[in-house]
Amino acid sequence: MQSKTEWMELALQLAKATEGQTSPNPSVGAVVVKDGIILGMGSHLQAGEAHAEVHAINQAGDKAKGAEIYVTLEPCAHFGKTPPCANLIVESGIKKVYIACVDPNPQVAGKGIKILEQAGIEVEVGIKETQAILLNRKFFHYMEKKRPYVTLKAAMTLDGKTATSTGDSKWITSKEAREMVHQSRHQHDAILVGKETVLKDDPQLTTRLPQGGKNPIRIILDTHLTIKGDYQIFSRDVPTWIVCTQEADVKGHKELYPHVEFIQLPTKTIELADLLAILGERQIQSLYVEGGQTVHASFLKEQLADEYHWYIAPKLLGGQDARSVIGGISPLKMDEATDLDISEIKEVGQDILVVARPKKGEV
Amino acid sequence: MQSKTEWMELALQLAKATEGQTSPNPSVGAVVVKDGIILGMGSHLQAGEAHAEVHAINQAGDKAKGAEIYVTLEPCAHFGKTPPCANLIVESGIKKVYIACVDPNPQVAGKGIKILEQAGIEVEVGIKETQAILLNRKFFHYMEKKRPYVTLKAAMTLDGKTATSTGDSKWITSKEAREMVHQSRHQHDAILVGKETVLKDDPQLTTRLPQGGKNPIRIILDTHLTIKGDYQIFSRDVPTWIVCTQEADVKGHKELYPHVEFIQLPTKTIELADLLAILGERQIQSLYVEGGQTVHASFLKEQLADEYHWYIAPKLLGGQDARSVIGGISPLKMDEATDLDISEIKEVGQDILVVARPKKGEV
Amino acid sequence: MQSKTEWMELALQLAKATEGQTSPNPSVGAVVVKDGIILGMGSHLQAGEAHAEVHAINQAGDKAKGAEIYVTLEPCAHFGKTPPCANLIVESGIKKVYIACVDPNPQVAGKGIKILEQAGIEVEVGIKETQAILLNRKFFHYMEKKRPYVTLKAAMTLDGKTATSTGDSKWITSKEAREMVHQSRHQHDAILVGKETVLKDDPQLTTRLPQGGKNPIRIILDTHLTIKGDYQIFSRDVPTWIVCTQEADVKGHKELYPHVEFIQLPTKTIELADLLAILGERQIQSLYVEGGQTVHASFLKEQLADEYHWYIAPKLLGGQDARSVIGGISPLKMDEATDLDISEIKEVGQDILVVARPKKGEV
Amino acid sequence: MQSKTEWMELALQLAKATEGQTSPNPSVGAVVVKDGIILGMGSHLQAGEAHAEVHAINQAGDKAKGAEIYVTLEPCAHFGKTPPCANLIVESGIKKVYIACVDPNPQVAGKGIKILEQAGIEVEVGIKETQAILLNRKFFHYMEKKRPYVTLKAAMTLDGKTATSTGDSKWITSKEAREMVHQSRHQHDAILVGKETVLKDDPQLTTRLPQGGKNPIRIILDTHLTIKGDYQIFSRDVPTWIVCTQEADVKGHKELYPHVEFIQLPTKTIELADLLAILGERQIQSLYVEGGQTVHASFLKEQLADEYHWYIAPKLLGGQDARSVIGGISPLKMDEATDLDISEIKEVGQDILVVARPKKGEV
Ligand SMILES: [Zn+2]
Ligand SMILES: [Zn+2]
Ligand SMILES: [Zn+2]
Ligand SMILES: [Zn+2]
Repeated sequence: MQSKTEWMELALQLAKATEGQTSPNPSVGAVVVKDGIILGMGSHLQAGEAHAEVHAINQAGDKAKGAEIYVTLEPCAHFGKTPPCANLIVESGIKKVYIACVDPNPQVAGKGIKILEQAGIEVEVGIKETQAILLNRKFFHYMEKKRPYVTLKAAMTLDGKTATSTGDSKWITSKEAREMVHQSRHQHDAILVGKETVLKDDPQLTTRLPQGGKNPIRIILDTHLTIKGDYQIFSRDVPTWIVCTQEADVKGHKELYPHVEFIQLPTKTIELADLLAILGERQIQSLYVEGGQTVHASFLKEQLADEYHWYIAPKLLGGQDARSVIGGISPLKMDEATDLDISEIKEVGQDILVVARPKKGEV
Repeated sequence: MQSKTEWMELALQLAKATEGQTSPNPSVGAVVVKDGIILGMGSHLQAGEAHAEVHAINQAGDKAKGAEIYVTLEPCAHFGKTPPCANLIVESGIKKVYIACVDPNPQVAGKGIKILEQAGIEVEVGIKETQAILLNRKFFHYMEKKRPYVTLKAAMTLDGKTATSTGDSKWITSKEAREMVHQSRHQHDAILVGKETVLKDDPQLTTRLPQGGKNPIRIILDTHLTIKGDYQIFSRDVPTWIVCTQEADVKGHKELYPHVEFIQLPTKTIELADLLAILGERQIQSLYVEGGQTVHASFLKEQLADEYHWYIAPKLLGGQDARSVIGGISPLKMDEATDLDISEIKEVGQDILVVARPKKGEV
Repeated sequence: MQSKTEWMELALQLAKATEGQTSPNPSVGAVVVKDGIILGMGSHLQAGEAHAEVHAINQAGDKAKGAEIYVTLEPCAHFGKTPPCANLIVESGIKKVYIACVDPNPQVAGKGIKILEQAGIEVEVGIKETQAILLNRKFFHYMEKKRPYVTLKAAMTLDGKTATSTGDSKWITSKEAREMVHQSRHQHDAILVGKETVLKDDPQLTTRLPQGGKNPIRIILDTHLTIKGDYQIFSRDVPTWIVCTQEADVKGHKELYPHVEFIQLPTKTIELADLLAILGERQIQSLYVEGGQTVHASFLKEQLADEYHWYIAPKLLGGQDARSVIGGISPLKMDEATDLDISEIKEVGQDILVVARPKKGEV
Repeated sequence: MQSKTEWMELALQLAKATEGQTSPNPSVGAVVVKDGIILGMGSHLQAGEAHAEVHAINQAGDKAKGAEIYVTLEPCAHFGKTPPCANLIVESGIKKVYIACVDPNPQVAGKGIKILEQAGIEVEVGIKETQAILLNRKFFHYMEKKRPYVTLKAAMTLDGKTATSTGDSKWITSKEAREMVHQSRHQHDAILVGKETVLKDDPQLTTRLPQGGKNPIRIILDTHLTIKGDYQIFSRDVPTWIVCTQEADVKGHKELYPHVEFIQLPTKTIELADLLAILGERQIQSLYVEGGQTVHASFLKEQLADEYHWYIAPKLLGGQDARSVIGGISPLKMDEATDLDISEIKEVGQDILVVARPKKGEV
C-alpha cells in the first residue's frame, strides 16, 4: 500500500465499516502516514466519542511530526464534545493533509481547511471525493436540507402487489431479502410506518441480525390517534414515537402508552414536509419508510423520498383489486410519474433488489 | 475448431441464426466434418425448404463418404416436402452422426436414429443437449402439448402499473425496449391482444425493425364481436384473426372485414385452453401475448403462459386506481400466487427486462 | 438476430469456422437476408470449391432478388475456378452488399466493388472490418508481401530454457499445450524445423487431434544436406520438403528419399528471406516454425517472424549452459532486442501461453 | 457490515494495510463488536508498539464488557514489550473471541487460547484462516523454519535473458514494474545481491516510492571480500551487510567501510542454508533476492526460494551467449527442473508478472 489513492481508500474502508452507527455524525476514517509507513489509523465510532483523526494521531504519537494524514471528510473546526480536529492536526506537527471532501455544512465548510492552511500545512482536497460523498449521502443531505434522507422500502410481487384483495401478504420475499432489510434498519436513525401496518402485521420493527445491530426509533403515523392495544411496536426496549394531528387526544393516549413519545402536528392532516422538518430538528438524519401503500403514496406524491429499495419477488399474483405497492390516487397522465435513476440491480436470494434514486433535477 | 464440442456449438450457432423464421419447423443446424476439416454446413432456413442436413451434405459432396455429421436435432425419418434426412445420411456414406437431442415428437422420436443404426452408422446423442432443447423450446413444447408456447409480455412502471386511472399509457418503456419487443414479434408465429387494446391504442402489431422482420399473425379476442371501424390491425398486408364466441354475428362481421379470419368458439366465453388447442391445430407453435391486463389475468389464472417477458421502466406512478399490469380478480391468499424461476435479468436501455418461466412442477 | 452488426458477426463466425482449411484462399463467410429473414448462408470451405457467396445465394434462390448480402471480404472479380462472385451477385438481383473489408490484393482491390456499383447495387464497406482483417491476417500478409506469415512457436521453462546442457528436453509443457500446438499446425500451410531437431527428437510434425486435422507440409532446413536415415518426418502420408544450399548433393539425396522435394538455394547459406520468397511462390501463405534455437535465432535476427506463440512451463531449470529458447549470437546492446506487442496471455493447462507480434512500425 | 465473516474481513483489511512494516512481528488486525456495532478497531503498526488488540480494546473502553473481538491471529500470551493480549482480553470483559488462525510458533501456539478459555471466554478459531495465513506467510515460515522467507525476483526478456553477452542490461522492464519492485522492497526485511551486481550496476537498493517506504537491510555476497570503492550501496542512511567466508580479510575491510557490518562464515564457500540460519537469528524474516544469475542459480540449486516474482518484458533478445536469468550449471535431466505452482499472472505496465511458489511437497 504505497500510493495516495490506496491510503485514501483505506481511510474510506475504515469509514465505511461504521456506516449506520455514527449518527448524527458522519462516518469518517483517518490514516496517518510517514515515509510510506502507516503510523495510525482510526474511525469515528459513535457520536460523543473521539473523531477519526484523534485515534489516528494518538496512535502515531510523536512520530506524527512531519507525517501526512488522509481523512475522508474535512477536519472539524468547532469546539464540541471534543476539541477541533483541525487544531489537533496543527499541534501534532503533521505537514500535509489529504481530504476526500469538504464539510457539507455551509456554515462550517472550509473552516477546517482554513485553520490548517493558516498554520502552514499543505492541504489537498478531492482524492476519491465521489465515493466519500456517496458514503455520507444521508449526512450530506441532512446538512443541506435539515431533514432526514428518506429511503422508501417496498417488497412486492413481479406485478407490483403487496397483498391480496383480502389483505393476505405474509412472506412475499425470501429470507435473504428480509435479512438485508434488517441491515438497512441498522443503518437508519428511524423507521416509519402507517397505523394500518401496525394493526395488520403487528411488526416489531427492530433490527434482528444474527450478531445484533442498532435499532432505529420507530415512528407510527396515526392522524387521529386511534390506535389502541398491546402491539409489539410498543415494546419498551426501543423508543417509539407516534405522529398525530391537531385534534388528536394526546393526553389520553399518553396514559395508555406512557413510554411513547407523541408528535402532534398543528394541522388537520399529517403534512410530511412538516414532519420531516420536525424529525430534522430532532437530529433524525435518515428515515427508513416501510410502507404500506398509503404512506408510500404520500411520500411519492410529495416527492420526499431520496432513495428507493425495491424488493421484487419472482411471483405473479394478479388482480386489479389486489393491493398495489403504492396506493392513493393515480396521476392523470403517465408523464406525471416520477422518473428514477437505477443505481443497482442485484439478486438477493431468489428475489431482485432494485435500488434507485430520483432522476437528477427532479427532487 | 477441433473438438466435438466446438463443432456442435457451430451447428447450434447455425441453428440459432434462424430462430423465429423456421416455424412450424424447428431451428436446426448441421456440420459435416472429416479429418478435422469442415466439408459442409447449413441450417434449415424456412419451412418448405431444404433441411440443414441437406445443405451440409450437398456441400460436402462425395467427400461426405467416411465423414461425421453434427446435427442439433435428430434427423427426420418421414417423407415430407423433402425425403428423410436419415436416409440421405445413409446414402452419403457418412460413418458417424452426433445428435444434440432427439426429436420431441413421440411418434417420431428415435426413428431417425434407428434408420441410421440399422445402416451401421455410429450414433452419439447428447452433446450440448440442454442448449439444443432450450433453443427449440417452443417447438418442443408444441410437439408435446399440441398447443403454442405462450410468452406473456408486459411493460410496466416499477410499481406495477401500465396506465393511469384515466387510461393514459404512452411510452412507458424506452426505445431500446420497444425494439426488443419487435424482435420478439419476429420470433413468434402469432401475437394476441384483447379488443380493448385495439380500441384504446390502435396498434399495428407488426414487426418494425430497421432491417425488416417476419410479421406474426395478429389475433384479437372479441367475445361478442362488437369491434367496428378502421383500425390499423386490419391492414391487409398481415393476416388478422378474430376470436369470438357462440352468439357472435360472424356473418355480419365477415362483410365488414372480408380479409379477416374468424374463429368462433362453441362456448359462451373464450376458454383459453380451447383456443390454444385450435391455434395448435392451425400450426401456431408460438404465441406472443401483448396484454392488456384482462388478457394477462386470464392467461395467469389458467396457468397457460410458458414464459414471461417483463419490461420494467424506472418510474413510479402510484395509485391503487392506476391500471395494474395484471387485472382481474386477486386470489384470496398470497400463496396462490404463481411462482416463477427467473432466467434472465438485463438492462435494456434505461429499463429492466426480467425473463421468467413458471417454477418447474407448477405448469 | 436483427441488425447489420449481428448479421456480419454471423458471416464472420461462418468464416472463422473454416480457419486453416481454405489456404491459399482466405476464410470468407456470407449471409443473404431479406426483410429480416436469413435466406442463405455459407462459407468458402476449401480451395477449388464454391465461394461463400455461391452457397449463400444458391440457398436463397429466386428470393435473393431484392435481398441484401453480408460478406466478410470483397467479392471476387476474376474468373478463376469459379465465375466472379461480384457478377453472381449482380445476376441474383441482390440490391445491397455489406462488405467487412476490401480485398488486400492491390491488383484486385476495389474491382469487385466496382462491378457491383456499376450494376447499380448499393455497397457499404467497413462493418466489423478490424475483426475481418485479423481473421485473415495470414492471407492479407501474403497478398501484400508475397511471402508466408510466419508464426514462431516455442515451449520453454520460466527461465527461458528448452533443454538441459546435455540436450534433454522431453515434456516441457503440458498435454493441453501440446494439443493447442496441433491446432496451430492444422491452421498453417507448412511447418519448418532445423535438421538438428529432426536428428534429436525424430518428430512426426503431423496434426494429431482427437478428431483429425489438416497436415502442414513439413520443411527441414539442412544447409549441406547431410541428413540420413529413416526419420518419421519422411513418412509418405504427408509431403516433406528439404531446403539446402548450392553445394548440396541433391541428386544423391533424391535417391535416398525419392518422395521428398528439394529446394536448393543458389547461395552458400540459407537466406531466410529468399526461402520465404520461394515458399510464397509455392503458395505457402502461412509457416509455423517449431524451432530449435538456431532456427529461431535466424528468424529473429532477420526480423521475419510475424507472430510469436510462447508456451511457458511453470518450471525453473537453471544453467547458463542449458539450451536457451533462442540461440545464436546475442546483440551487443539490450536496445537491439525486438520489441513485441502482447496480444494474448492465457493459461493452457498448467502452462502460460503468450501470443505476441512485433511492435508496430518495427517489421 | 453485520456478519462474522464481514468483521473478520475488516480485521484482515486492517492487518493487510500494515503489510511490510511490522517485522519482526506479524501483521495483525482486531475489531471489537457488540450488538452489531463496532466499538474499536486497530492494527499492530510497528514492532515495539501496541498490539492490534490493545488499540481495539482501548477504543471500546468500558463498553468492551460483553462484547466480541475478531483477531486475525491468536492473541499473545507472553510478557514482552507489552503485557499479553490474552490477559487484556480477559480483563476487558469480552465474552467471545474469534481468531482467524493460531500462532505458528509451536512453543506459543494455543497458549493464548488456553488463557482465554480458562477465563471462561468462548473462542472460535478458523474464520478466513487461509487468507490470514497467506497474509502472514513470511512470519509463519520464519516461525517454523527459523530462517527468512525468500522471494527471488527476476526481470527478463521473453526469451529468459537479463543482459546481452557484453553485459548490457539497462531498462529491461517498464516503469510500472520497477515501481512494483520498490513496493516489494518495502515489504521485506532485507534485500540480497551478489558482488557482481554491485560492481556492474552500482544500485542503491533502497525503496524509492512517490510517498516513501521502508528500506530493507542491504546484503552483499562477496566470498573473498574483494569489493572496493565507493558504491551507492554503502550509503550511510541504510544498513549494509557484507557476507564473506573464512579466509576473507574482514579487519582490513572494516577500516574501508566502518559503518558496514560483516558476516564471516566459517566455510570456504558461502553456504546459503547457513547464511539463512544466521539471518534468521538476526530476526530477518523476509529476504528479497535481486539476482544476478549466479545468486539465483545458488538459491535454485539449494531449493531455498519460497516465492518467485518473475517480471517478463515483451522483448526477444536472442543469443545462447546472452546472460540467462538463472546462471550456473544446468542439471542433466529436464525432470530435475524445479516445478512451480503459479499463483498469479498479471500485466504490469507493458510487462507480465508471474508470481509462483515451489510445487507443494517439493521444498
Ligand atoms: Zn473532528
Ligand atoms: Zn430432415
Ligand atoms: Zn468469389
Ligand atoms: Zn498481543
